[in-house]
Amino acid sequence: MELVTISDIEAAAKRVDGVAVRTPLLLQTWDPRGTLWLKPESLQPIGAFKVRGAFNAIGSLDDAARERGVIAYSSGNHAQAVAYAAQRYSVPAVIVVPDVAPRIKVEATRAYGAEVIEVPIGEHEAKARELAAERGLTLVPPFDDAAIIAGQGTAGLEIAEDLPDVDVVLVPISGGGLAAGVGTAIKARCPRARVIGVEPALAADAADSLERGELVRWPQADRARTIADGLRSQPSELTFAHLREVVDRMVTVTEDEIREAMRVLARQARLVAEPSGAVTTAAYLFHAEELPAGKTVVLVSGGNADPAMFAEILAG
Amino acid sequence: MELVTISDIEAAAKRVDGVAVRTPLLLQTWDPRGTLWLKPESLQPIGAFKVRGAFNAIGSLDDAARERGVIAYSSGNHAQAVAYAAQRYSVPAVIVVPDVAPRIKVEATRAYGAEVIEVPIGEHEAKARELAAERGLTLVPPFDDAAIIAGQGTAGLEIAEDLPDVDVVLVPISGGGLAAGVGTAIKARCPRARVIGVEPALAADAADSLERGELVRWPQADRARTIADGLRSQPSELTFAHLREVVDRMVTVTEDEIREAMRVLARQARLVAEPSGAVTTAAYLFHAEELPAGKTVVLVSGGNADPAMFAEILAG
Repeated sequence: MELVTISDIEAAAKRVDGVAVRTPLLLQTWDPRGTLWLKPESLQPIGAFKVRGAFNAIGSLDDAARERGVIAYSSGNHAQAVAYAAQRYSVPAVIVVPDVAPRIKVEATRAYGAEVIEVPIGEHEAKARELAAERGLTLVPPFDDAAIIAGQGTAGLEIAEDLPDVDVVLVPISGGGLAAGVGTAIKARCPRARVIGVEPALAADAADSLERGELVRWPQADRARTIADGLRSQPSELTFAHLREVVDRMVTVTEDEIREAMRVLARQARLVAEPSGAVTTAAYLFHAEELPAGKTVVLVSGGNADPAMFAEILAG
Repeated sequence: MELVTISDIEAAAKRVDGVAVRTPLLLQTWDPRGTLWLKPESLQPIGAFKVRGAFNAIGSLDDAARERGVIAYSSGNHAQAVAYAAQRYSVPAVIVVPDVAPRIKVEATRAYGAEVIEVPIGEHEAKARELAAERGLTLVPPFDDAAIIAGQGTAGLEIAEDLPDVDVVLVPISGGGLAAGVGTAIKARCPRARVIGVEPALAADAADSLERGELVRWPQADRARTIADGLRSQPSELTFAHLREVVDRMVTVTEDEIREAMRVLARQARLVAEPSGAVTTAAYLFHAEELPAGKTVVLVSGGNADPAMFAEILAG
């Protein structure tokens, strides 16, 4: 299987330049260890790192494919990322969403000019593939794709540029596209640094898979238990092949730790993180004994927290 | 009266480089007008733009003055900014705070290694001047100082660099150091751009003063009514002289507008803003008819919201 290379990520960096935000590394001066930097991908357009992959995938298309358009299936941040990137590049976009998706997310996706098609949950991937074939649209998958992995990897390239002597990088793992890309960039540029994947204990299928050396599937009902709704996907063969190469170890965090990390991020770092975006901070705060020491970058992957849930967690 | 120049601000930029965060401009893609960029100074160390002035003032001292140390009086972000900057530069710092200051802020200031002296409210400025004379410490005032104005102006320089064709810059006004510095930078680099000062209607002494062409003093009890506790100071002769040159107009916002802007910043921009940091967003959202059209940068000055108040506003 061919893995994404640092050259692919460097090429992606040129494509995302000026459209994705070059998020700064934020040294956390309140941290008594003094070794914590945040990479706030929550500040990207649409509030998540997902725009990096979407811009790279759509930016890599030839003119004919751009004219026909793109299609994606997602109930979450990927939907908005593809809709937004397509709009910026004047490429038509169709987004297939499960009919249980929150109205506010559906409306936001539509506001970026995408055609939104709602289908019963569980059918959205099949429907997207069907429409892609029918209409000649290019499918932009959420993670199982070299251009997506390379795009997400640009966040890792920026970490390596801004803190070349980084010792530890914490990255959340769901489908594995982000960790695959960031890990590849870090291992190429900062070979000394350790890349740590983080999952909720309630959706620790990647940790399980990496330990056993093969992809282990967890029932969807199990993965759905975590409040980190962006971390309920599972790696593909492609992303797993990357994870085996670039992830040094896994840490899992509890639901209470995720909530407390959201509070710390809001109070101390002045960032709104969604639960999935807070797992890495939770690992830093509550699992220090499982982590290598040294300069640590925590990737805060997204900030699309449900407002009512966020207010409740903050008050807690 | 000698005003701060663009050269002073350029020199300050060299001093704050690498110690203050170079905050990105964040295009807000949810905004239907499509003309809103945020400058999130809430992401600075200690959560406010104040570190820029503190780094410039302390960085400008000669070796003898550094060895003797600095002193500041403040109950708010300036106290922590001076304590933090002094620590980074290994300069001893004394901070005089009113004994009614929130414990959490006092502890944070102490955590940066400063000697904290608590005195009855209303006496902290006099006590700081007395100690400065006694111990040979350099007073770092919150705004009435050329080095502070030049330091805060570095935020304006970054805006001009990142969005050279900016049309409108919205900046909050309290003591006026930030608006003086940012306005000076913008007028020098983007002479076409309009600089708009924003105040709470309940503490609109600067608007009042600019309208009358002379400094007008509002009773402290009046200014204390706003929840924007960082905007209760009044310009000095020095900052007012700058404001007259560089501020094109003033907009005042209501308390409800400030609260709603805090909600919008959290939900749409994923930023925790303190009330003072949200007034400019409130002006953009609710006073469009008073503002010039075009590409608008809104400076979000700080993020140190009281956690309980913030949770309550979010839930509202």
